[in-house]
Amino acid sequence: MAKVRMGMVGGGEGAFIGAVHRWAAALDGEIELVCGAFSSDPEKSARSGAALHLPAERVYPSYQAMIEGEAALPAEQRMQFVAIVTPNHMHFPVAQASLSAGFHVMSDKPATFTLDEALQLRELVNETGLLYGLTHAYTGYPMVKEARQRVAANQLGSIRKVVVEYPQGWLASAEDEADNKQAAWRLDPKQAGISCCIGDIGVHAANLAEYITGSHISKICADLTPVVPGRQLDDDGSILLRFDNGAKGVLMASQVSVGEENALKIRAYGDQGGLEWSQQEPNTLWLKYNDRPTEMLRTGLPYLGTLAQANTRTPNGHPEGYLEAFANIYMAFAGQIRAFESGCVADERSVDCPGINEAVRGMAFIELAVAASNSEVKWHAFPDHQAT
Amino acid sequence: MAKVRMGMVGGGEGAFIGAVHRWAAALDGEIELVCGAFSSDPEKSARSGAALHLPAERVYPSYQAMIEGEAALPAEQRMQFVAIVTPNHMHFPVAQASLSAGFHVMSDKPATFTLDEALQLRELVNETGLLYGLTHAYTGYPMVKEARQRVAANQLGSIRKVVVEYPQGWLASAEDEADNKQAAWRLDPKQAGISCCIGDIGVHAANLAEYITGSHISKICADLTPVVPGRQLDDDGSILLRFDNGAKGVLMASQVSVGEENALKIRAYGDQGGLEWSQQEPNTLWLKYNDRPTEMLRTGLPYLGTLAQANTRTPNGHPEGYLEAFANIYMAFAGQIRAFESGCVADERSVDCPGINEAVRGMAFIELAVAASNSEVKWHAFPDHQAT
Amino acid sequence: MAKVRMGMVGGGEGAFIGAVHRWAAALDGEIELVCGAFSSDPEKSARSGAALHLPAERVYPSYQAMIEGEAALPAEQRMQFVAIVTPNHMHFPVAQASLSAGFHVMSDKPATFTLDEALQLRELVNETGLLYGLTHAYTGYPMVKEARQRVAANQLGSIRKVVVEYPQGWLASAEDEADNKQAAWRLDPKQAGISCCIGDIGVHAANLAEYITGSHISKICADLTPVVPGRQLDDDGSILLRFDNGAKGVLMASQVSVGEENALKIRAYGDQGGLEWSQQEPNTLWLKYNDRPTEMLRTGLPYLGTLAQANTRTPNGHPEGYLEAFANIYMAFAGQIRAFESGCVADERSVDCPGINEAVRGMAFIELAVAASNSEVKWHAFPDHQAT
Amino acid sequence: MAKVRMGMVGGGEGAFIGAVHRWAAALDGEIELVCGAFSSDPEKSARSGAALHLPAERVYPSYQAMIEGEAALPAEQRMQFVAIVTPNHMHFPVAQASLSAGFHVMSDKPATFTLDEALQLRELVNETGLLYGLTHAYTGYPMVKEARQRVAANQLGSIRKVVVEYPQGWLASAEDEADNKQAAWRLDPKQAGISCCIGDIGVHAANLAEYITGSHISKICADLTPVVPGRQLDDDGSILLRFDNGAKGVLMASQVSVGEENALKIRAYGDQGGLEWSQQEPNTLWLKYNDRPTEMLRTGLPYLGTLAQANTRTPNGHPEGYLEAFANIYMAFAGQIRAFESGCVADERSVDCPGINEAVRGMAFIELAVAASNSEVKWHAFPDHQAT
Repeated sequence: MAKVRMGMVGGGEGAFIGAVHRWAAALDGEIELVCGAFSSDPEKSARSGAALHLPAERVYPSYQAMIEGEAALPAEQRMQFVAIVTPNHMHFPVAQASLSAGFHVMSDKPATFTLDEALQLRELVNETGLLYGLTHAYTGYPMVKEARQRVAANQLGSIRKVVVEYPQGWLASAEDEADNKQAAWRLDPKQAGISCCIGDIGVHAANLAEYITGSHISKICADLTPVVPGRQLDDDGSILLRFDNGAKGVLMASQVSVGEENALKIRAYGDQGGLEWSQQEPNTLWLKYNDRPTEMLRTGLPYLGTLAQANTRTPNGHPEGYLEAFANIYMAFAGQIRAFESGCVADERSVDCPGINEAVRGMAFIELAVAASNSEVKWHAFPDHQAT
Repeated sequence: MAKVRMGMVGGGEGAFIGAVHRWAAALDGEIELVCGAFSSDPEKSARSGAALHLPAERVYPSYQAMIEGEAALPAEQRMQFVAIVTPNHMHFPVAQASLSAGFHVMSDKPATFTLDEALQLRELVNETGLLYGLTHAYTGYPMVKEARQRVAANQLGSIRKVVVEYPQGWLASAEDEADNKQAAWRLDPKQAGISCCIGDIGVHAANLAEYITGSHISKICADLTPVVPGRQLDDDGSILLRFDNGAKGVLMASQVSVGEENALKIRAYGDQGGLEWSQQEPNTLWLKYNDRPTEMLRTGLPYLGTLAQANTRTPNGHPEGYLEAFANIYMAFAGQIRAFESGCVADERSVDCPGINEAVRGMAFIELAVAASNSEVKWHAFPDHQAT
Repeated sequence: MAKVRMGMVGGGEGAFIGAVHRWAAALDGEIELVCGAFSSDPEKSARSGAALHLPAERVYPSYQAMIEGEAALPAEQRMQFVAIVTPNHMHFPVAQASLSAGFHVMSDKPATFTLDEALQLRELVNETGLLYGLTHAYTGYPMVKEARQRVAANQLGSIRKVVVEYPQGWLASAEDEADNKQAAWRLDPKQAGISCCIGDIGVHAANLAEYITGSHISKICADLTPVVPGRQLDDDGSILLRFDNGAKGVLMASQVSVGEENALKIRAYGDQGGLEWSQQEPNTLWLKYNDRPTEMLRTGLPYLGTLAQANTRTPNGHPEGYLEAFANIYMAFAGQIRAFESGCVADERSVDCPGINEAVRGMAFIELAVAASNSEVKWHAFPDHQAT
Repeated sequence: MAKVRMGMVGGGEGAFIGAVHRWAAALDGEIELVCGAFSSDPEKSARSGAALHLPAERVYPSYQAMIEGEAALPAEQRMQFVAIVTPNHMHFPVAQASLSAGFHVMSDKPATFTLDEALQLRELVNETGLLYGLTHAYTGYPMVKEARQRVAANQLGSIRKVVVEYPQGWLASAEDEADNKQAAWRLDPKQAGISCCIGDIGVHAANLAEYITGSHISKICADLTPVVPGRQLDDDGSILLRFDNGAKGVLMASQVSVGEENALKIRAYGDQGGLEWSQQEPNTLWLKYNDRPTEMLRTGLPYLGTLAQANTRTPNGHPEGYLEAFANIYMAFAGQIRAFESGCVADERSVDCPGINEAVRGMAFIELAVAASNSEVKWHAFPDHQAT
């Protein structure tokens, strides 16, 4: 049995997220990077491919050339899926072209530039029957999966309150914008879309809340702000939430919280217990009760559920981090591809991977948050057709 | 020089907060409990007074009797101030009667039952020229004072974002209500007023945010909920904030967050730095920066400011807690009384004590939060006359 | 019923530990400071007494005068016990004189200057039948008591390993010594005795380990060091331990661990579970297991045992600190005095107070540690007669 | 430029550490597993190789066959180094054979079965001039490297006290031994050598202390114990340390500390500052001072030194873990190989990799600890020839 073959679009020299995808794909030795179109600049693409030890003939000057070139190769050699790690506005066209040519797609988030594109993409995925993955990587952590399974098993009772927050500080001053390529495109409406903070990180927080609780956000009241003078897009946002199961909540995202790193954190409270998880200490899950001591659950221990177990590599006390979580998304997707090709049903671990529904909900959330923030009306509901 | 003499109204057998006030007043040996009307039941009052080692003749059957009896004593014997630790609805009448008879007042919070009473009380305080203290005890912690001084000294730059939260879990189920005297009155509109969660703890969070930032909340958008079925008053609330300096924020209070204890916590971010303080680890203050390591400040160390120093008793590493913070409020008030009696200006430490302005703002916040939550309009402003 | 009446020797202006004893004694309103000999300088004693609001006639120029003067008062007025807060070398003579005159004694630690004095004192206590308390205040914390009760109830199984550490940093440089009265006497063999670090804090660590485990240290191997050049006494020590139940352990104490505050911490492991407690976060006790999640126990919660409950004042989430722990020692001792005077048996809470046995073991530990450190022989046993 | 080619000995089905080495080698895409002898059982080796997607002709029935087979391949195809992940007793023969055949060696620790073998191995490495790496992986963490650089730059002043501890709980009961393959061989003198706890984890602690402080342990006093009845080898050990720079310290290692996971932690104190690092929260380094606030340093931030920067993949707030630390060792070794082959001097990052000197010191430490523990003499010195 061979490794699963991956092609990459984007992620050339100097790009950050492309490297993350490659580390994640490489870690478990089940996926092989076989080709790439790493930049719209053919020379840069070629240099990047060489640095990645790819043969020159599999390094393409454009994604179109890659799709064409790979399609012409024998089935057992050609790439099986395309990893899309371009800037946001290219996600949709590359995904569209890849699916249309018969290749599965693993896309960086946000899935598309607009909700409308996401809805089109959903149609295309449904039509082609091909696989689509989306790297909402924070749901790849074992303890996030444990949290989801505990809620699903009703161990906290009915969920009534959710607080999810995602403070960062790196965009706190205008100089950050000037010096930093990462900052520049996120704050440019032409490259980032209608939102910076909610589009970049708020959407992760919303996805995490829905993944863990198993409920959907149904209404929001939003207050987004470009805190740093002169910005066109929000760099901070606070949102009151209501969920379709009756729970209420708060979502906070910020890129101007000076001194915060990447402090994604969630707390959820049912009528029987509460949970807390922090991305910066990802191997710990806290369960809280009114009538007995708080419990600290840790990765790698036998009392955890099937998904946490299946997504952990090392024994307890050997911390796993962001790349391992990211790799879990890739491993699940690779499992889906193997099942697809063998005509089997994918196993529990492989199915547990963000996909096209998360893509649509994410884009819907971003557009709703911006609209709600611009309105003097308090509550704004998700339109039905966007709610999967 | 004698100790400052305190009379107490309320706080008889089985009452919790009366004991807290007595511990706080006793700790430093500067205040002496000389008399009390500990219960509206004269026998219970008498038993309570005896247990507190008071002579029988200074234990009164009613607050009216105490005011009358003490007023008849020689000036150097009679109580100097009245500590009010009754249920909420009695705070105003006792304060009114005490001030009218020439006694200073230290009141448990909330100051009154309604905003209207608070406004009346403010008038009375101004007319009599007497002293009024309010036990927003969380501002008594040295590291809260340090936070305030650092913000005032512009060490974080201009404050742009505030997140204050106060989750508790003890009212998470209806049974809690039935079994628990503390729960019963807080959830009864006749005793607690128009709000449970915001009135009991949300108002502490708001006060803390204003104390530390030195700014006033100017607008809110609120979502209060009686989460447990059958309740008339809110047991959870989330509020979006805007401050008069332009900062935005979020205030969360909850009594149904299962497993949370008394987890008051605040984070504030300026354009140069951020701070974080948690009531359950009160001797630590975190200062955060984008360009250098996060700093952990600790009580008792020489790099702290004047207020933190003046409000700490023990060397670093010897934790001080809630009672010490509460005692700091009492020590400040005792200092005000000594200054008042000697005709001096109170020193920095003594002035730093919540008073009638905080009383009015607290009641205004509660009433505004309830009104805002009941409205479909998004933002609600503090009326000018309530904003001190 | 009147308050218990306390006289104090030492603790005048500028002294630290005297103030701690007074705060602790005052907190609960059960003990009244009625007299004192606060300094060997009569004027200083008088000034100190006035500042403490004592009548001039109860402020004495010497401890001898106090004992004589109080003995001459009517029984219902005179002090009932003497709190000794002098420098170490005076503990024994004051305790001896007080007991001989019929007064109970509460002494700061270490009990005496030498083991020999401690053994004499034990004889005197036994002869007089009077009460003797010793402020090993760290055992006053509720969660330390919980730990002891859990071990006693065999919830961790048989204890096999103990790690107790007490790092401080405040004596890390020679300048600290010059500037600091607290440092000066501790490093002076004439005032401190044969050890600085072990005598001042190591003995607390040893006491804590014995209190929690219910076992006695039976053998040690010690390495004490005057780390800062020029010092005569140790400012750091590491000691291997063996306990009489077969457990092994390590005790570390240090005053040159730069940046550490007062970081007393203990871990104990039985064959069924482990526990961990840190003095700087005293309201938390960790219980650890191999087969289920670590538990975080917190003060004020109903699952705690009788001693923790009886020694906690405030609800969960309202932190109690060092002064409350210290006050617990005083409350226990006051309970012993009331029981003594009424001829009753003291209750569980009152009995739980360090006394003359801890005094002897502490002095024996200090002398053994110094001897062992000076020896090239590895293991040194506690002589039987010192081991209570 | 091609990837560096790795062969593996050991690490077949069901082995844990082999998988760790493969993840670590694969992560960065710079090393390719090209062949292996995964088990002494040829069928098992073949199955393991197939599962790892290796061509059948590069999966060998024995390490001898692998060395022979690879040596026969063209230089640009054959493996460049051998990763040894067998049980301990096979480390030496495989390393010897590999080096003798001209292959570099990356060995799991401990390097050999005895000190004598380690000394032989050092001679062979010196003779052949080939590269030898040892996976003391905990020194691969960026914040460990930062600690080393800060000490080397004298930012803490002269180091005077070191406390390094490594508690685990997984061997706390005899049943653990029976059920667990990992336990069984570690407790069997024939497979593990003369020590379990010190040989398995104590040696990591010693290595970490020497790596960070830049000083060598020169004398020890040891107390090792087989705590669980019936065991032949130690499962717990406490060791007093003296370093060649005059510092003192304590090393604790335990496998019977119930509820502890893999809690390697180090504290070091100089005369100007202290540091603390914990393996279970590896992205944080604490720096402590007496005269200013404790600092929390975090991976990925620009104030860190060259080694921390070079060994971090993701931005701050994206936690890296054990596999990334392990991969850093592999990346350094791959850098050495590339430099070796190109005749260049290896760069700072590549040189920073545990090697043959650490191999010798580790074996010397284990043998000295066992001898010292068995002796009634207190202090035992490292013989010179073992001390590198």
